[in-house]
Amino acid sequence: MANITKKVSWSSRADESGATGEATPLLNGAEQRPLSRQLSGGGNIFQIGRLSTVDLEEEMTSEEESLRGRPKEIAHNEKLLSLKFESLDYDNIENQLFLEEERRMSYMGFRCLEISRWVVCGLIGFFTGLIACFIDIAVEELAGIKYQVVKKNIENFTEVGGLSISLILWAVLNSAIVMVGAIIVAFFEPIAAGSGIPQIKCYLNGVKIPRVVRLKTLLVKVCGVICSVVGGLAVGKEGPMIHSGAVVAAGISQGRSTSLKRDFKIFEYFRRDTEKRDFVSAGAAAGVSAAFGAPVGGVLFSLEEGASFWNQMLTWRIFFASMISTFTLNFFLSIYHNNPGDLSNPGLINFGRFETDTVAYYLYEIPLFIAMGAIGGLLGALFNVLNYWLTIFRIRYVHRPCLQVMEAMLVAAVTATVSFTMIYFSDDCQPLGPDHTEEYPLQLFCADGEYNSMATAFFNTPERSVRSLFHNQPGTYNPLTLGLFTLTYFFLACWTYGLAVSAGVFIPSLLIGAAWGRLFGILLASFTSTGNIWAVPGKYALIGAAAQLGGIVRMTLSLTVIMVEATGNVTYGLPIMLVLMTAKIVGDYFVEGLYDIHIKLQSVPFLHWDAPATSHWLTAREVMSSPVTCLNRLEKVGTIVDILSNTSTNHNGFPVVVEVTAGDEPPKLCGLILRSQLIVLLKHKVFVELARTRLTTRKLQLKDFRDAYPRFPPIQSIHVSQDERECMMDLTEFMNATPYTVPQETSLPRVFKLFRALGLRHLVVVNDSNGVVGLVSRKDLARYHLGKHGLEELQLAQT
Amino acid sequence: MANITKKVSWSSRADESGATGEATPLLNGAEQRPLSRQLSGGGNIFQIGRLSTVDLEEEMTSEEESLRGRPKEIAHNEKLLSLKFESLDYDNIENQLFLEEERRMSYMGFRCLEISRWVVCGLIGFFTGLIACFIDIAVEELAGIKYQVVKKNIENFTEVGGLSISLILWAVLNSAIVMVGAIIVAFFEPIAAGSGIPQIKCYLNGVKIPRVVRLKTLLVKVCGVICSVVGGLAVGKEGPMIHSGAVVAAGISQGRSTSLKRDFKIFEYFRRDTEKRDFVSAGAAAGVSAAFGAPVGGVLFSLEEGASFWNQMLTWRIFFASMISTFTLNFFLSIYHNNPGDLSNPGLINFGRFETDTVAYYLYEIPLFIAMGAIGGLLGALFNVLNYWLTIFRIRYVHRPCLQVMEAMLVAAVTATVSFTMIYFSDDCQPLGPDHTEEYPLQLFCADGEYNSMATAFFNTPERSVRSLFHNQPGTYNPLTLGLFTLTYFFLACWTYGLAVSAGVFIPSLLIGAAWGRLFGILLASFTSTGNIWAVPGKYALIGAAAQLGGIVRMTLSLTVIMVEATGNVTYGLPIMLVLMTAKIVGDYFVEGLYDIHIKLQSVPFLHWDAPATSHWLTAREVMSSPVTCLNRLEKVGTIVDILSNTSTNHNGFPVVVEVTAGDEPPKLCGLILRSQLIVLLKHKVFVELARTRLTTRKLQLKDFRDAYPRFPPIQSIHVSQDERECMMDLTEFMNATPYTVPQETSLPRVFKLFRALGLRHLVVVNDSNGVVGLVSRKDLARYHLGKHGLEELQLAQT
Repeated sequence: MANITKKVSWSSRADESGATGEATPLLNGAEQRPLSRQLSGGGNIFQIGRLSTVDLEEEMTSEEESLRGRPKEIAHNEKLLSLKFESLDYDNIENQLFLEEERRMSYMGFRCLEISRWVVCGLIGFFTGLIACFIDIAVEELAGIKYQVVKKNIENFTEVGGLSISLILWAVLNSAIVMVGAIIVAFFEPIAAGSGIPQIKCYLNGVKIPRVVRLKTLLVKVCGVICSVVGGLAVGKEGPMIHSGAVVAAGISQGRSTSLKRDFKIFEYFRRDTEKRDFVSAGAAAGVSAAFGAPVGGVLFSLEEGASFWNQMLTWRIFFASMISTFTLNFFLSIYHNNPGDLSNPGLINFGRFETDTVAYYLYEIPLFIAMGAIGGLLGALFNVLNYWLTIFRIRYVHRPCLQVMEAMLVAAVTATVSFTMIYFSDDCQPLGPDHTEEYPLQLFCADGEYNSMATAFFNTPERSVRSLFHNQPGTYNPLTLGLFTLTYFFLACWTYGLAVSAGVFIPSLLIGAAWGRLFGILLASFTSTGNIWAVPGKYALIGAAAQLGGIVRMTLSLTVIMVEATGNVTYGLPIMLVLMTAKIVGDYFVEGLYDIHIKLQSVPFLHWDAPATSHWLTAREVMSSPVTCLNRLEKVGTIVDILSNTSTNHNGFPVVVEVTAGDEPPKLCGLILRSQLIVLLKHKVFVELARTRLTTRKLQLKDFRDAYPRFPPIQSIHVSQDERECMMDLTEFMNATPYTVPQETSLPRVFKLFRALGLRHLVVVNDSNGVVGLVSRKDLARYHLGKHGLEELQLAQT
Repeated sequence: MANITKKVSWSSRADESGATGEATPLLNGAEQRPLSRQLSGGGNIFQIGRLSTVDLEEEMTSEEESLRGRPKEIAHNEKLLSLKFESLDYDNIENQLFLEEERRMSYMGFRCLEISRWVVCGLIGFFTGLIACFIDIAVEELAGIKYQVVKKNIENFTEVGGLSISLILWAVLNSAIVMVGAIIVAFFEPIAAGSGIPQIKCYLNGVKIPRVVRLKTLLVKVCGVICSVVGGLAVGKEGPMIHSGAVVAAGISQGRSTSLKRDFKIFEYFRRDTEKRDFVSAGAAAGVSAAFGAPVGGVLFSLEEGASFWNQMLTWRIFFASMISTFTLNFFLSIYHNNPGDLSNPGLINFGRFETDTVAYYLYEIPLFIAMGAIGGLLGALFNVLNYWLTIFRIRYVHRPCLQVMEAMLVAAVTATVSFTMIYFSDDCQPLGPDHTEEYPLQLFCADGEYNSMATAFFNTPERSVRSLFHNQPGTYNPLTLGLFTLTYFFLACWTYGLAVSAGVFIPSLLIGAAWGRLFGILLASFTSTGNIWAVPGKYALIGAAAQLGGIVRMTLSLTVIMVEATGNVTYGLPIMLVLMTAKIVGDYFVEGLYDIHIKLQSVPFLHWDAPATSHWLTAREVMSSPVTCLNRLEKVGTIVDILSNTSTNHNGFPVVVEVTAGDEPPKLCGLILRSQLIVLLKHKVFVELARTRLTTRKLQLKDFRDAYPRFPPIQSIHVSQDERECMMDLTEFMNATPYTVPQETSLPRVFKLFRALGLRHLVVVNDSNGVVGLVSRKDLARYHLGKHGLEELQLAQT
């Protein structure tokens, strides 16, 4: 169990767990929660040890066993809500320092800031595009070499016999390449595994995922994805681009790299959560834009997943970053493709051009499309359920890095073997036209001038396979080939997602969908005699691809736009939307989307768009954490240090009150201060006595807080002498004097709306004379969700 | 001056002004504002009489004169902020009734609600599409007849001489048709004038514009736009579609028509501002979608202009409405065009297909595009400035309906005359190809087999002219023709916008831009010898159209997407975005966008996205209105009636307090109640005494409030006897017990953000013991804006 938290989860790693205070901070008042809840699921807090910071390895087995013996809630990890995730603060800390700075700033100052925001977004787009370009070229070149080698080998052995040697060569090549990718991910940066989309979704939602936007993560991600794709796994290189874009954005916008220990002394104003998150939205959008050549889709993706408060200027900047990203990618790819200056290329995945004439659709096809949407929803749900079981299995048993690497290698070898077997036993030979689009046509046992059709699907990068399924002439594939391909690729892709490699699920989903969609089209054409319209299987491949992808990831608006932009033809807007909607409705009936499943499995306190519909009977009084640890406006240093050092509570936000009274009357609120601010204050020894004795002449400035952002030192690293403990700290200047508050009787949906719309981290609950009675934080709201038996409450755990 | 407010402004009409209470309600506490402001512009409130409710006609002249003698603030209407506009309430009134209803509702109930929301959006899309289709067909047919008649006449007279008769025929025809359109607008529904986009922007922003979403407005709008376009004015039929969609949405979502006195007893849950505004967003999006065949552009338009709180489900529903709208339009148009079932047609305006091959662009063209953007920004600013002066002139002198009709007829006649003159003196003859796209080629003095090129631009519906400028072969137009056309059309369009006819500015802008863009392309090609790339003037026409439109309306993201969707080709995304951005930056340097100018001229309290950048030194204490009229939880009926009847204050929201004290201590807040709620309570005589004596057995329900929505009766229409005045009313059950509050020290940007993000109407300012000290409403925030000399404060006036 120790290993589970250490190696699989997003948020903790052994080598960084020295600083207890930083690694597992709790939100406020979790421990003191009154146990008088009456919701289903009970209110008792479950603590699965404080494992994430302890390295116990084998010794935990007994506890792991005992845990499994407990009620079934534990088996289902997604019924827990982890306390170890910190929140981001999308609300400005409006303390005196901040207001003074803002008031000092002239109108021109604000204009300059605005311009630098644009510059940052431009740079984000540029570097994201560059990275996409690098990945694309690297994959093209390396995959080209690999396929040439294997193809030559197969050609040699086709005549003399002994194709098993080719198989071994292929499998070993794949395994070796994948091994490299898996090793860097599993050993150096586990957070770089997968597509990164769930992590970015969480980040944009306001959950701080440790290390998700670091430079090291980016490097591992980029190398990892190249290895995965070249290694022939059933993965795509598109999903990781979103994560890469986000990392680029977080890096550039801060004007420094903590990993490289370089501070360029620029963009210092942007060193806070509010600004950083805006830029990360832009980065994610730029990533989508580069991946699919879909700038508008990228903007919508960011908005759909991230921004809760819609701001026109922000959106326009995001759009700018997206455009620059596509532009950069196109520009460099045009040079690479020896057609410099031609900017009409789309992104990483090119769906090819759908001409309006050939693929018009008619009214009577709409029901067919909807049926395909339903199929996509069903298959997507199946995919998700299988992957869910697999992930549970992996969390339990495949948690050591070496095991993870071995699993990845196994999958690579199996993928090669299955592909080879399929190609070997396929007798679907097609004539090789003069303008054939196949990059590596395998003749195998086909007659001269013909090629093995199965090989175009398997013996190719997935992007090319998708394109050939969309655009190849009718009759290029026979139904059996497509059926077998769908079946095998479905299971391969399902097995692959969640491996400790950096890879996306978009392309495999599209490929599966395109295959059964084309099959659907062919079958339709064979059932009806009229042909003509039905005889365009590429159209059905496109719809199938949309249905399958929608069924798996359940994205809606943004996916429609991405698909439309990737095809370069707006005609298909309506059918694609209908298909995605059907797929979402059908799929949601069974199970959630793939990303949401993975987010739930990590017990992230994710806030959805609205409070659960039937939660009006809950009020802030029931939801809040109480009692709250409050600080006086003028507080003793010793008290502050003790409160911050208390690992059993580990609060992050402290209401500042006029005076803590001993009586029953709750003290009156006058501000809110954060742990990170207190730590900076302690570090700079901003004590009243020292100021009086003129020992410190310099006044603390916002810059000091910005310099410490975002890696504030843990409280343990700050030395406070016994004398200093007796000093006093005046928090007036540093606290946020006007925190948002709600009365106790406020209904949960109302609290939720305020919290979500403003991106809050702490919301103080006050009584009718402004006395502090409680504090609402993210986990208090994320706990409630609609289950099968109405409103359910998740258990809180420190896993 | 009386006429100005009565006939030109959006918000008052003599025949509806009987109910003083309804027509000019003020926001809270305007009168009692302390006069201690130190902002530029002073804080004294300017009251230009209470003219909107008094019909004084000629008698006002002397006062009008005296007003003009006052300081120059009055001449510039946009320096005032009108108090007569009410706000919409985007925040749910969470009183006990509401919470009880929500708590009673099961999960299935919420599901059904959600489904009915989808159904409503589907219907909105369907009917909006239908209206667009009706307008399109009507315009096609009527314009066809008109042009055939004129063409035949011209052909007859070309040989025999006497073309002046043709000119007169043309001018009279145009004037007559425009007269019909102007009469219905000017006499029946002045709010239907123009494109309606500024009004919808305001509505979505949260300002209640009277009569803007009524059935009558829709009818006048539709008939008006047909007349304007057929009448040959320099207008488009696209803008009004947005208004039409919004009206359709407001009508359908309420499940009843107050005008027709029909209540279908459906969708009763949606009878409140929150829900209605969501649907109006969907309607506006559906309108854009139908107009330009741009469903995604429609969604973005709605979001850019309206929704402040981004909600995934809402967006998805808006998208659904947009899609259905385009789909409906395409379907019916396909039947009309004898190609039933072919759904690949775009919206009302069809930019024609841009093929990627022929119109690829290269890197070195980007600077050219940017230069065109700058030209567009300049020309747009010129257009706006001219139109601004013209509008000021119209507000002063052309305010009587008959004058307005005459002006419209004059413009129609002048347009015809100018067009005819241009055609007459043009010697630009072009050969009539075998596959000519000109609908009504005029031969005039050209040789047989040739046609007059100027006539394709002038003797045509504007949509067709745009298309021919985009797509006609190089050499179709000579530079002189284009130059003259640009010049004349520019002034005609500028004169036309703001007439009392229902018409849009999109198409004229596109046409002007396409003309000079094409000219730009032709000149480029003639300067350079290499040709080939430069030789595609259609490409430059497209960029020019985007630049001109962007320079006039200054829309950003949504316009990019609309242009991309209308061309059906995503390749042009980047250049169009760059062009629109340049046009916006250049244009904003001189003057605001056209819609914003018209909004300002109406003194609407419009809230922008953020508070002015340099407003951090203002706090809620300075911004709020105070003292506030508070009510007790248990209040005497007489007091309430008196407060509501007080026309000098006309408050709309009243904080409910524990007990109004006589001393200095502000009373403690316990809730907030609206004028509309109090009126319903008074109407139903919900008095404590009556309830005790069991005279009223039925408990008041939410349904009673919904039935009265949105046309609550004025207080004068409610009879309260002297006995009843002594009764008490218990507000506990009806007040919103948890209104949002802010402390006095909160900075303006923070107040602004809370207000805007949650779509509030009233925000209570409290002291540190929760005592009511002030109230912030829309006009308090909208007053501050960034002028040339830093932060400025607008004056409040009741105009």
